Amino acid sequence: MDNLTIANWFTKTSLLATAAEGEGSENGTLVIAAVLLSLVFIYLASKIGGEICARINLPPVLGELVGGVVIGVSLLHLVVFPETGSNPETSTLMRILSLTADLSPQAAESIFATESEAITILSELGVIILLFEIGLESDLKELIRVGPQAAIVAVVGVIAPFAAGTAGLIYIFHLPAIPAIFAGAALTATSIGITAKVLAEIGYLSSKEGQIIIGAAVLDDILGIIVLAVVASLAKTGEIQVTNIIYLIVSAATFLVGAILLGRFLTPFFIGLVEEMKTRGQLLITSLIFGFFLAYIANVIQLEAILGAFAAGLVLAETEKREELEEQIIPIADFFVPIFFVCVGAKTNLNVLNPAIPSNREGLIIAAFLIIVAIIGKVIAGFGVFGQEKLNKLAIGVGMVPRGEVGLVFAGVGAASGALSPAVDTAIIVMVIVTTFVAPPLLRVVFRQGTASQEESLSTSTDK
Amino acid sequence: MDNLTIANWFTKTSLLATAAEGEGSENGTLVIAAVLLSLVFIYLASKIGGEICARINLPPVLGELVGGVVIGVSLLHLVVFPETGSNPETSTLMRILSLTADLSPQAAESIFATESEAITILSELGVIILLFEIGLESDLKELIRVGPQAAIVAVVGVIAPFAAGTAGLIYIFHLPAIPAIFAGAALTATSIGITAKVLAEIGYLSSKEGQIIIGAAVLDDILGIIVLAVVASLAKTGEIQVTNIIYLIVSAATFLVGAILLGRFLTPFFIGLVEEMKTRGQLLITSLIFGFFLAYIANVIQLEAILGAFAAGLVLAETEKREELEEQIIPIADFFVPIFFVCVGAKTNLNVLNPAIPSNREGLIIAAFLIIVAIIGKVIAGFGVFGQEKLNKLAIGVGMVPRGEVGLVFAGVGAASGALSPAVDTAIIVMVIVTTFVAPPLLRVVFRQGTASQEESLSTSTDK
Repeated sequence: MDNLTIANWFTKTSLLATAAEGEGSENGTLVIAAVLLSLVFIYLASKIGGEICARINLPPVLGELVGGVVIGVSLLHLVVFPETGSNPETSTLMRILSLTADLSPQAAESIFATESEAITILSELGVIILLFEIGLESDLKELIRVGPQAAIVAVVGVIAPFAAGTAGLIYIFHLPAIPAIFAGAALTATSIGITAKVLAEIGYLSSKEGQIIIGAAVLDDILGIIVLAVVASLAKTGEIQVTNIIYLIVSAATFLVGAILLGRFLTPFFIGLVEEMKTRGQLLITSLIFGFFLAYIANVIQLEAILGAFAAGLVLAETEKREELEEQIIPIADFFVPIFFVCVGAKTNLNVLNPAIPSNREGLIIAAFLIIVAIIGKVIAGFGVFGQEKLNKLAIGVGMVPRGEVGLVFAGVGAASGALSPAVDTAIIVMVIVTTFVAPPLLRVVFRQGTASQEESLSTSTDK
Repeated sequence: MDNLTIANWFTKTSLLATAAEGEGSENGTLVIAAVLLSLVFIYLASKIGGEICARINLPPVLGELVGGVVIGVSLLHLVVFPETGSNPETSTLMRILSLTADLSPQAAESIFATESEAITILSELGVIILLFEIGLESDLKELIRVGPQAAIVAVVGVIAPFAAGTAGLIYIFHLPAIPAIFAGAALTATSIGITAKVLAEIGYLSSKEGQIIIGAAVLDDILGIIVLAVVASLAKTGEIQVTNIIYLIVSAATFLVGAILLGRFLTPFFIGLVEEMKTRGQLLITSLIFGFFLAYIANVIQLEAILGAFAAGLVLAETEKREELEEQIIPIADFFVPIFFVCVGAKTNLNVLNPAIPSNREGLIIAAFLIIVAIIGKVIAGFGVFGQEKLNKLAIGVGMVPRGEVGLVFAGVGAASGALSPAVDTAIIVMVIVTTFVAPPLLRVVFRQGTASQEESLSTSTDK
């Protein structure tokens, strides 16, 4: 054991800073200070935003997003990230830290980087735990029952906006094919996190419409992965790598079916094990081991970690421990999930909406077109559901509208490939922002409209 | 917004790795995979270790420590850290990752660094939340009532091992004054985390003995900060900086008294606010804002974050929301606290215990002396409690024995200052390991001995 490095062994003591002036230790201590302060601001933003929205009858999650915008790169710069062009000098948090603690410029650099990475990881754990919770609150049998309908919604919701968007950009805006296809592809995404959270908030997650939306959003996530792989390889090599696409489709199908089948097979063993355990947190930790393991598997086979967490939640929902686990996961979700939504808001740069910036103008015009296609394309998908007249089809379509972080990934890949002009890139980002922020209140309105009789129960279920 | 950096905007999609081959995004995706896999191993180690210990009638926390040793730098290298001399090549986790996912050597370097930092931060949040929970389960009035006794235990527990250790090293082992003083200082520490966890596990946290131990451990933490500042400045400049010491004493006293007074004053306002809130997690998040803020303040005024979290828990325990909050904090603690204990174990390098390594031998002899002084010094402190014959004084002393991470910080600062020979440094580390791992079972034995009548209730309370 290299003894010189033991000074960093546990970077917990502030005294090291005064006493030994060990650079690494000082950083370690200030990193945790920076993380704690970030969490304080994130929680303040989420609670203030959420409470305001709850009072003016908007979904609290919209308040968390807006709270994130306020403390993020657009306004206060309290919670900012290197990825969005921030640095220690522009970070208000780092300025507060250097006012309250001794902080050299070099130390500020590394503390800012580590703190940003830590908050990003906490926010990613947030969306993983959110999808685990959503899986736990979903009904596998119901999901399978609505599977064909969800598949229609997902497929139409991918094809309609993609075709309309790409064609419109080529024929109306005279864009070259590659950027038009990219922008069209960005229109296919659905942010499962935002929709699922709103559905849970208004108490419609386990409704038939809710389960169709969740099923379609999960399928859309997989379709999105495939669409992006296609578009990106098209932009890069000019041709489509068929093997890659087949691999993605097969691995996604195998994973979801395999995880659920294997999970159901192992469930009795799992329950037996938990019953036998004697230490604190036996159910919670055993479930999280399962959830995190599936998330890891999904991640390394090129799918998304959230799909694994969702599958794990779905399997555990079938067990007799469901209610107990749901109760225990609530505080964990309350801890982590706001970090995700506030960070989504904090990373959103509203400057692209400013028409005073000349370079934004062309983008804003294209954006207006993309927004219309984005909303109509998904609403059409909702009406694509066959049979059953009683379904609130408008609500299903609206539930698919928010693009969230998934849409921005398209913009990012497009920009990185060099295929997008700044105007198209701005347009995609504006479309993502508008659909993301407009969907939660819209979703609430259409659910109320369609099922006014249930309105009574809503006001109580949101107060929980 | 620099559009090129949006590829990193949300580093969530694995598809970026295949599609765009964006280096940053690929790393982001694999970082979360690495963190998820680390958590799976950490939880497996904590549960397997904890369950085995629970079955052979040892405290589960010892199992978590040993589980950490098994997966850590001493054995499996699954959860290792750059601070303990590990790198991507020696990390089993990184090898698994490179087998299951595409991983270039450069990427491995940065993923390993980020993953280690993330796990370190999660484990630090773990001890902060543990102390928050301990504060919540403590009784401020009882702590104030036992204050004088706790002060005696803390002061005697600092002076006795320090004096005996330093004198013994100088007169028996003929060490120079500075290293002898350093080793003596390392003997003064107490790991509040380990003791508090064991007390909670055996159901003695709210006993009079338990509250004296907690009070003394908190005071010991503050005394430790002061002792280390004194010793380090002595080693560095050869003289004691009186102003620094006065600053530390005044700030510690002001902080603890101020936090508690201000907290009690603000409590009715806090409860009123929580009552008014309508969104999920209102009590938990509002409490965590308070706890994390105090932890941040404690950290930046050169105290320790855990003192702030403890003070926050103590204040909130006085409110009518105590029980509700305790219930909600349990899953959060179940999530975070094992990460802390497993990491303490994982960072412990048992190689220093190997007498086959020649350079360890001199250290092991000195270590034997230090261990005896470490245990006797704290046990004497327990018997220093005046009055009340009924107290289990042996248990109080034993409760102060584990040095844990605090003791290793002394070794680290000593090594960094260059004042310690390798033998003395090894001796300190061995002393810390032995006292840390021996205290939990010892504590359980002495509590049972002293109060055999309560034994019935124990077996049930540990099963929770």
